[in-house]
Amino acid sequence: MIEIDLNCDLGESYGVYQIGNDREILKYISSANIACGYHAGDHNVMMETVKLAKKYNVRIGAHPGLPDLAGFGRREMNMSPREIYNLILYQIGALAAICQAQGVKLVHVKPHGALYNMAARCRSTADAIAQAAADYDINLILFGLSGSELIIAGKEKGLQTASEVFADRTYQSDGTLTSRVEPNSMIHDVKYASERMIRMVKEGKVKGADGTDIAICADTICIHGDEPAALDFSKKLKEALLKEKIGIRKSW
Amino acid sequence: MIEIDLNCDLGESYGVYQIGNDREILKYISSANIACGYHAGDHNVMMETVKLAKKYNVRIGAHPGLPDLAGFGRREMNMSPREIYNLILYQIGALAAICQAQGVKLVHVKPHGALYNMAARCRSTADAIAQAAADYDINLILFGLSGSELIIAGKEKGLQTASEVFADRTYQSDGTLTSRVEPNSMIHDVKYASERMIRMVKEGKVKGADGTDIAICADTICIHGDEPAALDFSKKLKEALLKEKIGIRKSW
Amino acid sequence: MIEIDLNCDLGESYGVYQIGNDREILKYISSANIACGYHAGDHNVMMETVKLAKKYNVRIGAHPGLPDLAGFGRREMNMSPREIYNLILYQIGALAAICQAQGVKLVHVKPHGALYNMAARCRSTADAIAQAAADYDINLILFGLSGSELIIAGKEKGLQTASEVFADRTYQSDGTLTSRVEPNSMIHDVKYASERMIRMVKEGKVKGADGTDIAICADTICIHGDEPAALDFSKKLKEALLKEKIGIRKSW
Amino acid sequence: MIEIDLNCDLGESYGVYQIGNDREILKYISSANIACGYHAGDHNVMMETVKLAKKYNVRIGAHPGLPDLAGFGRREMNMSPREIYNLILYQIGALAAICQAQGVKLVHVKPHGALYNMAARCRSTADAIAQAAADYDINLILFGLSGSELIIAGKEKGLQTASEVFADRTYQSDGTLTSRVEPNSMIHDVKYASERMIRMVKEGKVKGADGTDIAICADTICIHGDEPAALDFSKKLKEALLKEKIGIRKSW
Repeated sequence: MIEIDLNCDLGESYGVYQIGNDREILKYISSANIACGYHAGDHNVMMETVKLAKKYNVRIGAHPGLPDLAGFGRREMNMSPREIYNLILYQIGALAAICQAQGVKLVHVKPHGALYNMAARCRSTADAIAQAAADYDINLILFGLSGSELIIAGKEKGLQTASEVFADRTYQSDGTLTSRVEPNSMIHDVKYASERMIRMVKEGKVKGADGTDIAICADTICIHGDEPAALDFSKKLKEALLKEKIGIRKSW
Repeated sequence: MIEIDLNCDLGESYGVYQIGNDREILKYISSANIACGYHAGDHNVMMETVKLAKKYNVRIGAHPGLPDLAGFGRREMNMSPREIYNLILYQIGALAAICQAQGVKLVHVKPHGALYNMAARCRSTADAIAQAAADYDINLILFGLSGSELIIAGKEKGLQTASEVFADRTYQSDGTLTSRVEPNSMIHDVKYASERMIRMVKEGKVKGADGTDIAICADTICIHGDEPAALDFSKKLKEALLKEKIGIRKSW
Repeated sequence: MIEIDLNCDLGESYGVYQIGNDREILKYISSANIACGYHAGDHNVMMETVKLAKKYNVRIGAHPGLPDLAGFGRREMNMSPREIYNLILYQIGALAAICQAQGVKLVHVKPHGALYNMAARCRSTADAIAQAAADYDINLILFGLSGSELIIAGKEKGLQTASEVFADRTYQSDGTLTSRVEPNSMIHDVKYASERMIRMVKEGKVKGADGTDIAICADTICIHGDEPAALDFSKKLKEALLKEKIGIRKSW
Repeated sequence: MIEIDLNCDLGESYGVYQIGNDREILKYISSANIACGYHAGDHNVMMETVKLAKKYNVRIGAHPGLPDLAGFGRREMNMSPREIYNLILYQIGALAAICQAQGVKLVHVKPHGALYNMAARCRSTADAIAQAAADYDINLILFGLSGSELIIAGKEKGLQTASEVFADRTYQSDGTLTSRVEPNSMIHDVKYASERMIRMVKEGKVKGADGTDIAICADTICIHGDEPAALDFSKKLKEALLKEKIGIRKSW
């Protein structure tokens, strides 16, 4: 039986500011990417989110981002690979300590937002992230966009990688995601999204913007649960996967 | 032969802002308390400071503080024990990851500034700090003011503790430090300071403000190296200790 | 006809983090206290909120707070009067510039959270705030808790003051608000709250916790609109005031 | 008699972190660009710097930067013109309030670091900055790199502009500064720098990297005083200007 991982970004609240619907989405996913205090999250939110993930038996990963709370880590910043290496270590360690205190394991690392995009196309950024993860714990699983520089870098550093695909986004013919500012970047029809998803998982293919097939590797699917519609989308997507006898990954 | 630990706060620079004289003082100390990015320090400074401490073969400890860079962690803030527990874990973990990448061990924890003072007199704050350290790694050494609530809390949680004394500060008759805002809070005469220090180490006694003896435990001495005068003070203090056959602690 | 001002804290969102229901509550109030980027708000939120207040013809005031986004300005911090003076000026000026660009006037100042409470009971804090407001613009109206040190300080500095009362909070016999951590600190019954409010406005009296009357001055009523229940509470309170022929203040 | 303005970035300290040599350099300059708390400076430093500038009778300008204290505003960030407009207003206003309390006038605006460079080459960034300055006070003088988009934008918005030249930097043949990462970007020979400076002021020309003359407009010269060598450089440069009968500008 084929198995797939379902991941979601969690723990993005900050102080009195609540965001997301962590309690609900935890019922549908197998991996939680927890913000580490740079682009979102704080030490209290991290602790509460680790406890919740533990309760729902969901694997925990670090979701490090750029140091830009005001921009939610979505604005690219000029930053040296040396600094990226250091900030990844810092954030992984901060979350790992909270996991340690809760007696749970830190399983994976997935960079957030602008850092994820920079790591997808820029090799020196990708290398810095992969090296930091490897130097911290060679058993960490590195999550990155399918076909990205980050996946290549992770493999070279000796890390196990998980190629990520998006259920609600369209792809360009070069395998990159269509930018959010473009029309048709998002897929709102859950039936169509589910069919694409199943084909990605089973055949390793997805239709690009020009209609031709792109080779894709689907180890983990990124889903969202922050709005009622997103939660419903995730729920139906999971049902479609199970109907096709695609299981949810129990371990790496 | 009696042995004593000499500790100093390091890694307090931030971005382009340089503070302290880390390279020089590392030659005189056995334990470095490294700031963790909340009241001072950042991920780059932490990495450079860990590398330096490793080079000089100095033991590394976390020096977590309140989240107040503008106030350098010196302003007391109302904060729940739950939050203090979380912020200690976060900061310990962040530094531990950088140590891990450098192949060195995190040995001790010493809270900074206002947090140190709050932990000296307030049991719930002390308990939160000690519990966080113990939950992260029961082998960590907890540094606190001699006779403080933090030392008591650390022992109760099963941690090894190191009672800290100050060479350049005077004590009140209850064993607390004379506040910096008071006249006569600081000792500038290194010969007098050395004699006090030696008596603290050998006899476990120091004269309080009213002239009577106070029982004190001296496991580690806090020294400073941020200014030429401070560096010279530290150097002469160390010479005085060695002359009295008091060695510098090689391990805990 | 008696007139009363109705004020509400607005513009407390930050980056992607949304809080409050500014668009709705603006329909019921005459004064908006806009956060200035220290405890909440940012330059974008401030601009949007000033535009909204202008659209609804609501008077704009600065709502400066302690520099503590993570704690929403609700945690007391040790801070010198000199620093409080400076941070009030900074925040007033930042908002005033945005008002200036929108062609609207900055009318009042009301400190937020912990700073409001510190200014209510501590004269040196109150003096620092009042002096900063007076030095910036002697025509600013200073909002403070009825009977507080802040109101006294404001008058002494030559500022017009507005004594604030709370519709949904109970009072101690000394005129201070019952702490939120106490039971019975909040009033949820809008009919009871309305009756108290009308008595405060008309008779200058309110029942304290021990049942005896307290003298109170009601220039402005603080209301909330962040949740559906709060919005409804505010709406009904306003209806009750109008029914009693208490008008909403058109200008100071 | 020709007159020239001499400007320097000041007030870049933060909390306990001291940077620069504001007291000394104030003796040599006519315009102080004061950091506004985003990339450097804080409300206390701003107040102290305004007082110092007032004491030395030096004109005060706002020196707004990107919200990146850790990077000292030197890292480019993706940011919309709308946000740049808002953050310029915020920072100008914050400093203007402190000037207002000290009874001095805010005279000019000069963006800092990455924002200065972005505004030199990107018209939408330049427009946002110029529009914010104009909307705040049409009498503000806008400082920008000679020949830059910022100068063009400022003129279009109806602002008086001051074209800035650098005494210690070399220019490319297109009039841009040679990047600091290149060899020969800096000029360390004060005699050579002075001759170039005098030619820029008197003839409006400077030799570019390829040896040909570039047309340049020199309204204000940027100097530095943060290190003894920089201070000495500034002092000698000023002497050379005065020897050539070039006066220091007394007002705009």
